[in-house]
Amino acid sequence: MKFRIFILLAFLSAYTSSAQDSLIFRKIADEIMVNGMCYNNLRVLCKRVGHRISGSTEAAKAVGWGKAAMHAAGADSVWLVPCNVPYWFRGKESLELMLGGKYVQVDALSLGNSEGTGGKLLEAPVIMVYNFDEFNALPASAVEGKIVFFNYRFRQDFIFTFEGYGDAVKYRGAGPTVAAQKGAVAIIIRSMSTGEDDFPHTGGTHYVDSVKKIPAMAIGNRTADKLEEACKKGNVSAKLTSECHMMPDLVPSFSVVGEIKGTDNPERIITVGGHLDSWDVGEGANDDGTGCVQSIEVIRAFKALGIRPKCTIRAVLFMNEENGQKGGQAYADSAKSNHENHVLAIETDAGGFSPRGIGLVMSKEQKAHILQYKDLFLPYGVYDFTREEGGSDIEPMHSRLGVPLAGLIPDSQRYFDLHHTNNDVFENVNHRELKLGAAVLAQFIWLISEHGVN
Amino acid sequence: MKFRIFILLAFLSAYTSSAQDSLIFRKIADEIMVNGMCYNNLRVLCKRVGHRISGSTEAAKAVGWGKAAMHAAGADSVWLVPCNVPYWFRGKESLELMLGGKYVQVDALSLGNSEGTGGKLLEAPVIMVYNFDEFNALPASAVEGKIVFFNYRFRQDFIFTFEGYGDAVKYRGAGPTVAAQKGAVAIIIRSMSTGEDDFPHTGGTHYVDSVKKIPAMAIGNRTADKLEEACKKGNVSAKLTSECHMMPDLVPSFSVVGEIKGTDNPERIITVGGHLDSWDVGEGANDDGTGCVQSIEVIRAFKALGIRPKCTIRAVLFMNEENGQKGGQAYADSAKSNHENHVLAIETDAGGFSPRGIGLVMSKEQKAHILQYKDLFLPYGVYDFTREEGGSDIEPMHSRLGVPLAGLIPDSQRYFDLHHTNNDVFENVNHRELKLGAAVLAQFIWLISEHGVN
Repeated sequence: MKFRIFILLAFLSAYTSSAQDSLIFRKIADEIMVNGMCYNNLRVLCKRVGHRISGSTEAAKAVGWGKAAMHAAGADSVWLVPCNVPYWFRGKESLELMLGGKYVQVDALSLGNSEGTGGKLLEAPVIMVYNFDEFNALPASAVEGKIVFFNYRFRQDFIFTFEGYGDAVKYRGAGPTVAAQKGAVAIIIRSMSTGEDDFPHTGGTHYVDSVKKIPAMAIGNRTADKLEEACKKGNVSAKLTSECHMMPDLVPSFSVVGEIKGTDNPERIITVGGHLDSWDVGEGANDDGTGCVQSIEVIRAFKALGIRPKCTIRAVLFMNEENGQKGGQAYADSAKSNHENHVLAIETDAGGFSPRGIGLVMSKEQKAHILQYKDLFLPYGVYDFTREEGGSDIEPMHSRLGVPLAGLIPDSQRYFDLHHTNNDVFENVNHRELKLGAAVLAQFIWLISEHGVN
Repeated sequence: MKFRIFILLAFLSAYTSSAQDSLIFRKIADEIMVNGMCYNNLRVLCKRVGHRISGSTEAAKAVGWGKAAMHAAGADSVWLVPCNVPYWFRGKESLELMLGGKYVQVDALSLGNSEGTGGKLLEAPVIMVYNFDEFNALPASAVEGKIVFFNYRFRQDFIFTFEGYGDAVKYRGAGPTVAAQKGAVAIIIRSMSTGEDDFPHTGGTHYVDSVKKIPAMAIGNRTADKLEEACKKGNVSAKLTSECHMMPDLVPSFSVVGEIKGTDNPERIITVGGHLDSWDVGEGANDDGTGCVQSIEVIRAFKALGIRPKCTIRAVLFMNEENGQKGGQAYADSAKSNHENHVLAIETDAGGFSPRGIGLVMSKEQKAHILQYKDLFLPYGVYDFTREEGGSDIEPMHSRLGVPLAGLIPDSQRYFDLHHTNNDVFENVNHRELKLGAAVLAQFIWLISEHGVN
């Protein structure tokens, strides 16, 4: 009998808890969908600050914007976490391709972190390969003194486009080093792009110190199609000029933190963050202005609703995700040296599109605990909890401090049309999709604050 | 023992069938994501035909486009189903509002099917109400001779925006009649719009024969905000001129049908369709060019892959969904008079966004049969089979012939920003989202063709 009563009480308690969770979920969504400020905040970040590469004056301006936005959202306290960041400078650049028998100026972007031609003209024959296998089969004599065109296509058959990106991105990351090892003088890559357009996509490349650092540029899909056709027909050459270079010294910078102090367990911290820096193109709207304003929105919504979470909630705008992760590392350093107790960290850095899932990087037991609540998210279009996705900025919290991670997973169809391009602008973010993502983040954080991570 | 073997065989057969289904699903998705023609087809429809209201020369041009596109997709046979459609003509229109003490020309659209001022100037005081309850509480003396401004806001708290539309659309449908019954001379409505912008949204209104047909115009959210402020401050008047009217006679028109003949059960027919007509604004891209090109893509993909479905598959571009559903009615009439055997009809008329679900309008047993296969759709982002959604064009197949219906349910966040506006253009459709929707349609149809609807 006692056992039965226990079961009944346990059932009732679970039922009541779930009904209450569901009600709070609804309140959070209503508040953000109707009164949300994240879209307005994004407009200000995109239009008044614009793109903001680490180390630049724009990045410094973005730090100021972030502080003010955290205060306006009602954070109990706001502070900066210092970090020293690399500063890559683009300068002027130009690419001309021999198409149809004459040189044609095309739209191109030097890859982030790459070295340029020092502003001097570099003219050389182009050799096209479709992939590394094909490149590796070439004798060095076929490559020496040439510009290698890595014409690898982003695979459109991956439904989750981050898988296509993972498949293609090695040509951007390793292309210059692979090519230089055989004596190439520069590389051109087909952008890591799903786009039915001609926007070139920049993004980080990585040199190896022992190998010559050769210039590297990306071209859009339509230009790559033309260059491919030209290479198939016969000999093609290219003229390349660029001033880009990595500055010799690191630059002092900051991540921005806004906090709501927890009621019952103020020492237990839950972090939600995006990254404040962007590449130096477009407006860094979906990468990752949207993550920043969604993180701030979590604070705003809790404050506006008078929700006082049990745990301490921190919104963090990490600096330098794109080429160093110095902000994320400094945040983990600070957590460690202050002996902080972190329950979980969640990142939103996959665009401001309709949410579909939440990635979980944690133990099986912790996942099972969270999955008890997954149906609460269904009315908000979130059903996928299968992916092991956290985020670059919070990764050191996991690998160094063992903190469980999560990552917001929005619909991925449009992200790699826009990613790292001049088309990643405010106008390509939808207000409702952005807000819905913020609502799901706030719901998830409320849930973890109430029920822990086991 | 026999029983055990039976179980084992049943299990193996189910397993094999599911594995084969999964493989075909993959093939269909690969073909459409990589080689799909629907995005190119949509470009041609939007840019060469443009908007295409029933009865117009553009609608006739669209019929020609549809026939050619069906042939190009490889349909075994293509034909037209005739229907007589209403033809509503917009003509010139203008709205000036007294804002800040002077008349200001604003962007406005007469509601579809509405009568205009016969081109004459109509100037009258404006009376604002927030909803019908408030209007009903007014004495007729407060309304007589006035222009009623129905300032009902599209509720942003509905996550599935079609629910918000269902909530708000009565002001567009019934507003003119409700207002005229108390002597109003015209109405202005805040558009049925989720948009953070100023696009006015047209769409059908419905007069009652016994009540005076007064002019009706929609204004965008930003203009509605200004008019609201002005009305709160004091007396406001408006000047309205419009030439719109319903033509006295129906116009001969057509729906377009393309068919692949089934192998095993050619007499069993599965229909997939969208509607070919649009309102006379924008390019009718998401409403419903996307549904047309997705339906054609089903035919193209089966042909390209050499998939020969057991049942006959028909792609139908229905005429006159927006203001009469004459195409859908004629299709059901034709099915009835030809004693056709229809297994199921599915419509795609909710925009070319990432698919999320498939609505099912059928018996519990039929739903249960289909739901056995729902996990096959998960890798393609389709998880919601809970909604009773078919489509306006296929509705007569259900209500008159008892055919089970289904409806593709894409992500709904952006639809009512664009719906019935000059902003519903090709550029606001994403190629991958569009193709993914087409892939899911083709997968679903293949499944029904193989396994029936119980």
